[in-house]
Amino acid sequence: MDVHLEALAEVVNGRVIGDATCSISGVGNLGAAKKGEITFLANKKFAHLLPATQASAVILKESDIDTCHVNAIVVDDPYLAYAQIATVLTQVDNLPVGIHPTATISKSASINASAYVGPNVVIEDDVEIAANAHIAANCFIGRSSKIGESVFINANVSIYSEIEIGENSIIHCGAVIGADGFGFAPSKGEWVKIPQLGAVIIGKSVEIGANTTIDRGAIDNTIIGDGVKIDNLVHIAHNVEIGEHTAMAAFVGIAGSTKIGAHCTFGGGAGTTGHIEIADNVHLGGMAMVTKSLKTAGAYASGIPAEPSAQWRKNVVRFRQFEKLEKRIKSLEGELKVLKGS
Amino acid sequence: MDVHLEALAEVVNGRVIGDATCSISGVGNLGAAKKGEITFLANKKFAHLLPATQASAVILKESDIDTCHVNAIVVDDPYLAYAQIATVLTQVDNLPVGIHPTATISKSASINASAYVGPNVVIEDDVEIAANAHIAANCFIGRSSKIGESVFINANVSIYSEIEIGENSIIHCGAVIGADGFGFAPSKGEWVKIPQLGAVIIGKSVEIGANTTIDRGAIDNTIIGDGVKIDNLVHIAHNVEIGEHTAMAAFVGIAGSTKIGAHCTFGGGAGTTGHIEIADNVHLGGMAMVTKSLKTAGAYASGIPAEPSAQWRKNVVRFRQFEKLEKRIKSLEGELKVLKGS
Amino acid sequence: MDVHLEALAEVVNGRVIGDATCSISGVGNLGAAKKGEITFLANKKFAHLLPATQASAVILKESDIDTCHVNAIVVDDPYLAYAQIATVLTQVDNLPVGIHPTATISKSASINASAYVGPNVVIEDDVEIAANAHIAANCFIGRSSKIGESVFINANVSIYSEIEIGENSIIHCGAVIGADGFGFAPSKGEWVKIPQLGAVIIGKSVEIGANTTIDRGAIDNTIIGDGVKIDNLVHIAHNVEIGEHTAMAAFVGIAGSTKIGAHCTFGGGAGTTGHIEIADNVHLGGMAMVTKSLKTAGAYASGIPAEPSAQWRKNVVRFRQFEKLEKRIKSLEGELKVLKGS
Repeated sequence: MDVHLEALAEVVNGRVIGDATCSISGVGNLGAAKKGEITFLANKKFAHLLPATQASAVILKESDIDTCHVNAIVVDDPYLAYAQIATVLTQVDNLPVGIHPTATISKSASINASAYVGPNVVIEDDVEIAANAHIAANCFIGRSSKIGESVFINANVSIYSEIEIGENSIIHCGAVIGADGFGFAPSKGEWVKIPQLGAVIIGKSVEIGANTTIDRGAIDNTIIGDGVKIDNLVHIAHNVEIGEHTAMAAFVGIAGSTKIGAHCTFGGGAGTTGHIEIADNVHLGGMAMVTKSLKTAGAYASGIPAEPSAQWRKNVVRFRQFEKLEKRIKSLEGELKVLKGS
Repeated sequence: MDVHLEALAEVVNGRVIGDATCSISGVGNLGAAKKGEITFLANKKFAHLLPATQASAVILKESDIDTCHVNAIVVDDPYLAYAQIATVLTQVDNLPVGIHPTATISKSASINASAYVGPNVVIEDDVEIAANAHIAANCFIGRSSKIGESVFINANVSIYSEIEIGENSIIHCGAVIGADGFGFAPSKGEWVKIPQLGAVIIGKSVEIGANTTIDRGAIDNTIIGDGVKIDNLVHIAHNVEIGEHTAMAAFVGIAGSTKIGAHCTFGGGAGTTGHIEIADNVHLGGMAMVTKSLKTAGAYASGIPAEPSAQWRKNVVRFRQFEKLEKRIKSLEGELKVLKGS
Repeated sequence: MDVHLEALAEVVNGRVIGDATCSISGVGNLGAAKKGEITFLANKKFAHLLPATQASAVILKESDIDTCHVNAIVVDDPYLAYAQIATVLTQVDNLPVGIHPTATISKSASINASAYVGPNVVIEDDVEIAANAHIAANCFIGRSSKIGESVFINANVSIYSEIEIGENSIIHCGAVIGADGFGFAPSKGEWVKIPQLGAVIIGKSVEIGANTTIDRGAIDNTIIGDGVKIDNLVHIAHNVEIGEHTAMAAFVGIAGSTKIGAHCTFGGGAGTTGHIEIADNVHLGGMAMVTKSLKTAGAYASGIPAEPSAQWRKNVVRFRQFEKLEKRIKSLEGELKVLKGS
């Protein structure tokens, strides 16, 4: 789609410098963008690439205009403006509509005429698919689930029964929503399954990554707030609640019944134990291990960064000798006291 | 399904207090259960909710009956009794039977007349599906695999060739059983694939979580014992053996050829290296890192819980200075010896 | 397939000891192989099994021939020779060819006549499938993707649009290639999606494990070099580049824009932060946490192996007291200085 620079500037309330009628057809990185493309400079680290850019226009801050020799859109937050402009430039207008003949749809399912249901999709009884929803190939949607307006579900997604997905949410391939929570009662050395009877309620504008799993609640529901962004291969256990606009990177694992606040960010591989609470605005580093409630906003981390293996082996041994080390210090303190007293 | 309280008490060998003919139609949490629902009190933490419960009946211990003003079933283990009663109350009687017309089934496959094969399921040559097995939509079952009686396989599951799944097992969406183990021989800087020729043998009453992967053996088989419970996104590598009734939470990873005992529990994210042995009744904490055999039953853990990032950074630096720290102590000890000797 | 020992020896440039016309039909482990099978001895640990083996032939080193009473193939690297011989013995000759009638194929897709497209596969516009490629049941291949010669894609794999997969690559069930990278710009407490416009370019002879996810680039591409081997449940984020012949075990996570060298090995659960560089020939231990660039080849590790929980709890407390410990040492050093000076 070709758009005049002026029109893109309007989208982001930016100021055009240079030729406002310049035609933009795509995006590129500062170092690689070609004629007809727009790029952005958000991070000082890349400022050295600006003078030589071949882009037709650059989204940048006021403070960078002096070294820019091409057209520009000046904004306060170039990264955000890039997101908005790239969205306009890459909008797909002709999404398919209707039900593919190979789909298997229950007669009691209700599918809006503006929705799309792709090849081999299976939709069970009493499912509701709202306007403009897109269900790609080979998805399964279980009994009584409700898919909101303009939800986009990619191929091979599995949604169990009685799940609700709020409008404008995006689900990537292979995600599984609503599998049984991991609940068993021990009995004479064996495990007796606890029926998992709750649902999963997903808010609006949520994004769920590829092969991520969100389990249904045991009795009450698992709840994902509006605007939550979840990366690939994340696991959300039964009865977890996640507050609005929290973001979680790949391999995050949240154990059962934990309540996560709003506006949190979880680095990749971070995990929490079950039945705890994480306050709003908590920011967890990658691979952080959370074993108790974090009731105060702020940044938390754990784990020792990798070091050369020979050094690591020595430090592991010393970590194991912690107790002895502390005893040696104590003993030194005692002896010193005696010496000083003498 | 409506059931008299009396009948539910019989299921769990419990004693009814109050109206034995009271009709129960569902379950709820102690704090949220409504009229017609049964709930349970298993954890002292929730005892304060008992006096105000709106449930028609509560499953509880003898010691809690005094503060209970509604009907009750008295048992030794309320959580276990809840599991059994909830199972009765939520039993689904009308599971579908037969082969969906969109399924693609090899002529040499043998499918019991009481089994269900859902839409778009693909079943290859010489597969055997036993009585009352349920294969949901879009599953793939490879050549010569055997699915036992009353096995329930959810949608979008992939089962490679020559896999055996024991009776009453449950497999959740997206699980992959029998992919090639990760085996390569190095040769001149490249990797030569080792054909993975073993199978996966899964016992009875095993539960396998969503998007979990269990690889086939290299020459011999990967073996999962009876009653093993595996959560979502777990990885079991080639030739691993897992003893009966062991349970593993999400993100557990077991490297190749490791033998895990019976009745173990593995917390989320715990991982073991390959070619080791874990004894029966070993209990691993979440994110525990196991690098050698654990030959004694008991609880094991590792990892440092998350702390505020500023504090964490200091401790990481100090961990790195371990060696220096120890040298300073050694030097102090030497000097003190000299001083004392003088 | 029955093959003379002689012919197998030729495959690996090995020397036959014993009956060169001995017929071999399969493989087995040293301890379990039966008549008609070939086995191997690569690791001294198993040498005690050699004298009693029931195999018809053993692949071994010169140094082990004295304790071998059956036929043998002598080579320098028995594990590598086993890989090559097992490949010959288990070659499948009659792979199916053609398009299954239940597949849904765009008219603009180009599928080589020697390729196989299985049941319920969905192939979108402008996809190209090269000669001898195998696309198993229920896969989805998005618009304009290119599948190279002799690529083998197992069931239930999802490939988004504009992905390229080099010849002879293998993709296991449930893998997802080309989902949107995890990119959002913060705006007034919410997240604005950054369109993910790059592709994924996968080299030749790459193997990708079950349920692994490789995200498409944000603007430029995510790149996987020739000969890279990736295990199950691995996550490769947007714009990552992985050098040739690097191998990654299960649960490895590589955050966005990180560049990994060639010939690296990553242990299970190892993770890296984004925007860093890992040199060629870096070997990461299992669960290693990499937070900055590793510019020197070699072995790196982190993490504390599991210990009995009681001991672990004490060490965690002491880790937390690091700062105090160091202060006590400092104080001791000061006092000692005073004492010595006096």
